[in-house]
Amino acid sequence: MRVEIWSDIACPWCYVGKARFEKALGEFPHRDDVEVVHRSFELDPGRAKDDIQPVLSMLTQKYGMSQAQAEAGEDNLGAQAAAEGLPYRTRGRDHGGTLDMHRLLHFAREKGRQVELLDLLYKANFAEERSVFGDDERLLELAGAAGLDTDAARAVLADPDAYAAEVREDQREAAELGARGVPFFVLDRAYGVSGAQPAEVFTRALTQAWEARPRLTTVEGGAEVCGPDGCAVPQT
Amino acid sequence: MRVEIWSDIACPWCYVGKARFEKALGEFPHRDDVEVVHRSFELDPGRAKDDIQPVLSMLTQKYGMSQAQAEAGEDNLGAQAAAEGLPYRTRGRDHGGTLDMHRLLHFAREKGRQVELLDLLYKANFAEERSVFGDDERLLELAGAAGLDTDAARAVLADPDAYAAEVREDQREAAELGARGVPFFVLDRAYGVSGAQPAEVFTRALTQAWEARPRLTTVEGGAEVCGPDGCAVPQT
Repeated sequence: MRVEIWSDIACPWCYVGKARFEKALGEFPHRDDVEVVHRSFELDPGRAKDDIQPVLSMLTQKYGMSQAQAEAGEDNLGAQAAAEGLPYRTRGRDHGGTLDMHRLLHFAREKGRQVELLDLLYKANFAEERSVFGDDERLLELAGAAGLDTDAARAVLADPDAYAAEVREDQREAAELGARGVPFFVLDRAYGVSGAQPAEVFTRALTQAWEARPRLTTVEGGAEVCGPDGCAVPQT
Repeated sequence: MRVEIWSDIACPWCYVGKARFEKALGEFPHRDDVEVVHRSFELDPGRAKDDIQPVLSMLTQKYGMSQAQAEAGEDNLGAQAAAEGLPYRTRGRDHGGTLDMHRLLHFAREKGRQVELLDLLYKANFAEERSVFGDDERLLELAGAAGLDTDAARAVLADPDAYAAEVREDQREAAELGARGVPFFVLDRAYGVSGAQPAEVFTRALTQAWEARPRLTTVEGGAEVCGPDGCAVPQT
């Protein structure tokens, strides 16, 4: 069974939702038969690389919150994160574009290090003082810590076309599947879960998708097949 | 919709079956929504890299055919290939191990050049005089012609571990899905087609799988989601 998770590094509910999903998956009896793929969803797609701003001022300016509302929202997120055992800095975080991080995550997926890099990016963004935005060296340190070759990762960052098509394709698919926000979880392309729902909701979705997973119905034809005993020759 | 095709470069029915499948796909109304992925299946898995032998003597020695039977089998395959417009040398081809080619095909998949490389490997093996076995320079020429970076392809060939796990995983999945030979086609993990069946069989399978393709049922929860309008804060 395959679970695809659309998310953004700048999305606090994605950070929290991933932990809730993983709690459910960790207790799921068929967890070893579940493949998890992380997909890209930029919350702020056109944002220039050097357009970095404190989260709290982004919330007041872009969404018209009062300072008190913005702080209360961050406090609430901090509490929800803490309930999942996740560190979260409710003050002093930055907001910025995440395209380069998504490109690196696609590169990491090819190398089998996607979830390692994603976890490090989340932790760096939500829990550590040094900003992840506008700092390629920071991203390369994280890539190295995730087990990636830093020279290869540097080449990915330096080439804006590298893995950009993959990011766009993920976003196109998210829209096609009806995702209006993230996190967005899709199980076997049959069951979707929108948002950082409680672990029990993920458990139900995993169980339901597992029970309904497609069984293969195979059309066996004549003899036109090659196997360990050679290539059969049909009667002509 | 996703179609996975397990095959081996040394498998004549795979070469023919791919053409039949593509004929059906080319006429399928939803062809632009069909993603095709080629997967590895070594017909002769443990075969040493330098263990190369003429196809006809392999057929007589390994499968105990008479020379006349072996030649008749090749003539039949040549006729089936010709009916699909595919060139096929019925005499003088070699047989050998294909692990390195499968490793290269996984590398090519990452670079978006898988089908280009597969087509060139098939053509080289079935239609051209120079053997594809035991000749790294030949494989690198084909990789270059498929649009791959030949230095990177050379590094893949030089490292026996590169993409070897991916080849093994493909083979494990083929066994799990019940493939006893190749070509083996799997549509959305729900419909299988075994063998180089007529195009009409593929058309029926495509139509059936398309009509039965999963529609997404999404659980929308509370507000714990981030979207273009910011991250909603649930009432607490």
